[in-house]
Amino acid sequence: MTAPIVSRTILRGSLRSHFGMTNHADMTVSDPSASKNAVEEELTLSPKFDRDGLVTAVATDARTGELLMVAHMNADALARTIATGEAHYYSRSRKALWKKGETSGHTQRVIELRVDCDQDAVWMKVEQSGEGACHTGRRSCFYRAAPLGQTGIVRLEFRDAGKAFDPQAVYKT
Amino acid sequence: MTAPIVSRTILRGSLRSHFGMTNHADMTVSDPSASKNAVEEELTLSPKFDRDGLVTAVATDARTGELLMVAHMNADALARTIATGEAHYYSRSRKALWKKGETSGHTQRVIELRVDCDQDAVWMKVEQSGEGACHTGRRSCFYRAAPLGQTGIVRLEFRDAGKAFDPQAVYKT
Repeated sequence: MTAPIVSRTILRGSLRSHFGMTNHADMTVSDPSASKNAVEEELTLSPKFDRDGLVTAVATDARTGELLMVAHMNADALARTIATGEAHYYSRSRKALWKKGETSGHTQRVIELRVDCDQDAVWMKVEQSGEGACHTGRRSCFYRAAPLGQTGIVRLEFRDAGKAFDPQAVYKT
Repeated sequence: MTAPIVSRTILRGSLRSHFGMTNHADMTVSDPSASKNAVEEELTLSPKFDRDGLVTAVATDARTGELLMVAHMNADALARTIATGEAHYYSRSRKALWKKGETSGHTQRVIELRVDCDQDAVWMKVEQSGEGACHTGRRSCFYRAAPLGQTGIVRLEFRDAGKAFDPQAVYKT
């Protein structure tokens, strides 16, 4: 089956400004009229940003496969990540581009970056520098499990929850 | 440091109805007044649903660590997943609860379910039954990579993109 040609919109003018993009960050966006099959089978990155201009970004440890964190990227963060091989995110709370490790020194070198079928999520296999990815001091943000079979109020258990570093010292909080 | 007590709201009445919840699906929700530290350190599941009532749900292969899919759960999908150990999601396009595999037979048995620091994302290690998780016929939804160092229009490459099953046969499309 041949994937149909997708017409695309290059982010320029107001859209470029909306996404805070610099000159190195040209990026196509999904054309709403593009067929589902085209988005799934084409080989041009055409992220499907949500109404806030974000895609979901998942980082796993390239060596162990452990899920380190789930965050978001805007077009600028995604373009910078692909251009530099260093993970950049968009902080929804601070409403700002955020290079991972800019405060903590715990940067993430991207080994591989993939996009999912409908291009609204990105998976990075990373080399995590420093002791951990989580601002709470753990290696991974996923340090609590919900044992299965529970109904009603769900009790969590700590898993791999030991502090890898002292967040107060690292983040100067 | 002792985590402060968090006051919680149990989903009842209109909220229960909003989330389409049944009796087995009582679930606490994050109290916006709860301190950041409490949400991060407490051992009661208190998901931080977004304005659409959803959290991000990430499924990895329990055996290989491969990222299979990224989707969303509402309170009902999360409660059913925890209660039954079978992955349930919420389809934003169909606006409906969705038991993974209900059409394809490619169900996901949850081996472990974790929640992240701010409780707006869930990680499941799953045993994927059948040939794959992706509706396009691949094992994983992440079958395209963006080689690093690119600027401007980003070209993708297929990776592990062979069809594991025929989606037209499985989904009767």
